Amino acid sequence: MTSGPFSGTTLADTVQRLRSGATDPVDLVEEVLDAVAAAQPVLNAFVTVDAEGARKQARAARDQQPTGALHGVPVAVKDIVDTAGVLTTMGSRHFAGHVPERDAVLVRRLRRAGAIVVGKTTTHEFAYGPTGDDTANGPCGNPHDPSRMAGGSSAGSAAAVAAGLVPLAVGTDTGGSVRIPAALCGVTGIRPGIGRIPTDGVFPLSWSLDTVGVLATDVAGTASGWRVLAEGGDVEGPPVTGLRVGLPTGDWFDRLDPVVRARFDAFVEALGRAGAALTRVAVPDAAELHDVYVTVQSAEAVAVHHERLAENADMFGNEVRRRLNAATRVPSYLYARALRRLTAARATAARRFSGLDVLLLPTAPITAPPLHARDTDVGGGWTSPREALLAHNTPWSVLGLPALSMPVAGDGLPVGAQLVGPPGADADLLAVAQAIEEATG
Amino acid sequence: MTSGPFSGTTLADTVQRLRSGATDPVDLVEEVLDAVAAAQPVLNAFVTVDAEGARKQARAARDQQPTGALHGVPVAVKDIVDTAGVLTTMGSRHFAGHVPERDAVLVRRLRRAGAIVVGKTTTHEFAYGPTGDDTANGPCGNPHDPSRMAGGSSAGSAAAVAAGLVPLAVGTDTGGSVRIPAALCGVTGIRPGIGRIPTDGVFPLSWSLDTVGVLATDVAGTASGWRVLAEGGDVEGPPVTGLRVGLPTGDWFDRLDPVVRARFDAFVEALGRAGAALTRVAVPDAAELHDVYVTVQSAEAVAVHHERLAENADMFGNEVRRRLNAATRVPSYLYARALRRLTAARATAARRFSGLDVLLLPTAPITAPPLHARDTDVGGGWTSPREALLAHNTPWSVLGLPALSMPVAGDGLPVGAQLVGPPGADADLLAVAQAIEEATG
Repeated sequence: MTSGPFSGTTLADTVQRLRSGATDPVDLVEEVLDAVAAAQPVLNAFVTVDAEGARKQARAARDQQPTGALHGVPVAVKDIVDTAGVLTTMGSRHFAGHVPERDAVLVRRLRRAGAIVVGKTTTHEFAYGPTGDDTANGPCGNPHDPSRMAGGSSAGSAAAVAAGLVPLAVGTDTGGSVRIPAALCGVTGIRPGIGRIPTDGVFPLSWSLDTVGVLATDVAGTASGWRVLAEGGDVEGPPVTGLRVGLPTGDWFDRLDPVVRARFDAFVEALGRAGAALTRVAVPDAAELHDVYVTVQSAEAVAVHHERLAENADMFGNEVRRRLNAATRVPSYLYARALRRLTAARATAARRFSGLDVLLLPTAPITAPPLHARDTDVGGGWTSPREALLAHNTPWSVLGLPALSMPVAGDGLPVGAQLVGPPGADADLLAVAQAIEEATG
Repeated sequence: MTSGPFSGTTLADTVQRLRSGATDPVDLVEEVLDAVAAAQPVLNAFVTVDAEGARKQARAARDQQPTGALHGVPVAVKDIVDTAGVLTTMGSRHFAGHVPERDAVLVRRLRRAGAIVVGKTTTHEFAYGPTGDDTANGPCGNPHDPSRMAGGSSAGSAAAVAAGLVPLAVGTDTGGSVRIPAALCGVTGIRPGIGRIPTDGVFPLSWSLDTVGVLATDVAGTASGWRVLAEGGDVEGPPVTGLRVGLPTGDWFDRLDPVVRARFDAFVEALGRAGAALTRVAVPDAAELHDVYVTVQSAEAVAVHHERLAENADMFGNEVRRRLNAATRVPSYLYARALRRLTAARATAARRFSGLDVLLLPTAPITAPPLHARDTDVGGGWTSPREALLAHNTPWSVLGLPALSMPVAGDGLPVGAQLVGPPGADADLLAVAQAIEEATG
C-alpha cells in the first residue's frame, strides 16, 4: 500500500494543523510534491503536477490569515476540469496541449476557500469509462495493488486520496465515476444531487447526468469538500438508532462477488446491531433505469464528440472510439423516450423513499479487477468490468439522487458501501453517512 | 362564404344571450346541428358530431343556473383530444374506432365552465402537418373558398369558427397548428406559452413543443376560452398608444406573397397611426430555431409512432408515413443538441423583448393554397405550402412563447397578423391584441 503525507490522517486533522500553525503550508506542499513524484511511477495518479503554482499558492497562504474552510489544504482536481493556465487534457490526445484560460466554477470555489491545487488527476479518456485504465497518459493503478484498476473515471482523484498524497480531491460522476473509484480504492466519495454543484468549466460527458463530486478519506472530509463546492450548510444528522435503511434487492443487485457479499453483509449486520431499522426494498425498474442511462449517455456523448469522431477518429483511444461509434447508432426516438423516462423518474423519485431515510447497497459488486481486464471472469459471474462497476450506480444517476460511497471495514482489497438519499437531501445523506461511520468504524 | 348561427356575432354575444334567456341552449344546439350538417359536405370540418350528447348537455344547461363562463355555449374540439365516450380518431386510420374512456383535462375544464361539446373537428393526420388536407376523414375546406386549405393541423376548429358553426373551438399548436388555420380562415387563435394549458389526454405530436390553444372570431372570445382552459385571470391591458411593437425583419421573414405584404403593411400603418411605436428587430437565429423545431419534432414524433410505423405502416396516409420514415433517420446526437439549444433558448427568451411589448409579423407568408397543393408556386416564391406555412411560426414554438394570430382587415382570402409575447405573458398578449383589434378594427 502506497503511503503519503496524509496517510492515516483526515482532512479535519490537516485543516486543524494548518490553522494552528503546527503545519506550514509551504512545507506541506513540498512534502506533497515529493510524495506525488515518488508515487507517480507506481500509480500514475496525476497527469500534470503544478509544482510552481502550488508553491506560489502555498506562500500566499502562509502570508494570509486563514479564513476559508480549506486554507492551505493541498487538493487534486480531475483532469477534465478547467484550471486557468494549467494543462487540462480530458485524458485524451485530442487535448494533449490544451491550457484553459479560466478556472471552472468549482476551482474558483476551491481557491476562494483557500485550497491549493497541486495537480490534475488521471481520468478515463473523456471520463467515458469506469475502469480508469484507458486514457492518453496511461492507466492509473490502485494504491492497494497497483496491478489493479483504481476504478473510474475519476481514477487519479481516488488513488491520490487513498495513497495519502492529498487529503481531498475533486472528481466527476456521470454513472458512478466518483463512487466506483472511491469504492475500489477504499476512500469516501459523494456524487451530489443533479445540479447541486455547477459543472461550468467541466468537460461534458452527458449533460443530463454529469455531476461534480469530491473524495476524501472519511465522510467528514467529503462533507467539508461538498460544503465548499456546493456552497452548502452544516451537516448534522440523526443517530444510527432508528435510521430507516432500505436494502435494494432482486436480480439486478444480487450478482455479488463472494468477498463483496461477505464484507457488505457484515457491514449491514453491524448497522443492525447499532440500531438501524433494515428493510429489503425492490427496485423493479433497476434494469430499465440502467438502459435509460446507457441511451442518454450514448446520445449525449456523441453530441459532444461527433466532429472529433468524424474528423480525427484516430486520436481517440481504441476503446472510447469503438464505444462512440456504437453510440452513434442509437436512434433519436430511443433517446427521446429515454430522456422522457428520465424526466418522469426524477419527478417521482422522492416516492422511492417512503418510510426510508436512505438506500444502502454495495457500490460495486466486485473488487478492483486487474488493469486492462476485459471479457474475463472478474467475480460474481461478471465478465465485463465496465458492466459490473456501473450496475449499482447508474440507476441513481438517472434518478438524479445524491449518492455516496464509503469504505466497508475488512482486510484485502477495498469494498465500498453506497448510500443513496432522497432528492435534494445531500446534506442529510452526508450526516447519515457520518453517523454510520461512527457507529461501524 | 359558408355561414352558420354564429356568423357575424362574437362569443360574448352568445354568452350574453344565453345568460339573459334570450337564447335557449336546447334550441341553439339544434341550430348548430342543422348548420353543421349543412356545411359538412362542403367543409368537412367535423369528424364526429355528438348530436345526442350535445342535446343532453343542452337540456342540462337549460335546467341549471348559469354559473360557468361558457354556460350553454356550443364548442368544437379537435379530434386529437380525448372525449369520454365519443370517437376520437387522431385523424388517422390507426384510431378509426377509438373511443376514450376519459375526458382530457381541457375538456373537463370546458364542461365545468358549462360548455357543450357538439363534436370533434378535422385534424391533419396525428396533427402532423400544417395543411389540414391529409387525414383519414378527408380534407377540410376553407369557408372562404372550400377548394382551398383551411390550414392545419387544427383545420376543422378554425373552419368551424370561421363558418359560424360554433363561437369557440379548441385546437393544438406544435409549430403553428392553431395560428396557421386561424390566419388562413380569418379567425383569431392563440398558442399559449408552453405548459400553460395541460396537455393530458391530448395525443402527442412532439411533447417538447405541444400546446393546447383556442380559436374564436375575435380576441375577446379567444381570451374567454383561454381563461377557461388556462384557469387564467382577467385580461386587461394598455392602450395601443405607446405600445412598443417589434417587427421581425431579415431574409427569413421577407418572403411574402404580395397580397400578404400589402395587407400586413396597411395593418402596421394603421397601428402606427393609432400611436404604436414600431421598431424593426432582427431575429438572426430564426432559421436555426426552425431547424431545432424540425429536429425535435422529428425525433419525438417517431418516439410516439415507432411501433405503428414498424408494424402497421400501411395504415398511415402516404404523406405522414413518408415524413415519419424520413424522421427516423435523424441521429440521436442531433436531437440531443437541438433539445439542448431549445432549453437554452427558452431560458433566455425574455431578453428578446428588451424595450418591446410584443413582436408582430404575418402569421403566414401566403394566403390559403388550393387543397392538396404540393411542390408548386403558392406565392412569395414558396413552392412548399408546408414550409411556407410553418416559417413564421416555429421559432416562437421553440422559444415556448405565447403567440396569437388575428385577422387583418381587407377583402379576398384572409391574412393573419401574429403577435408574440414574452415568456409567461399570455394574458398581457391577449390584452394587447384586444387593444389592437379595437384600434384597427
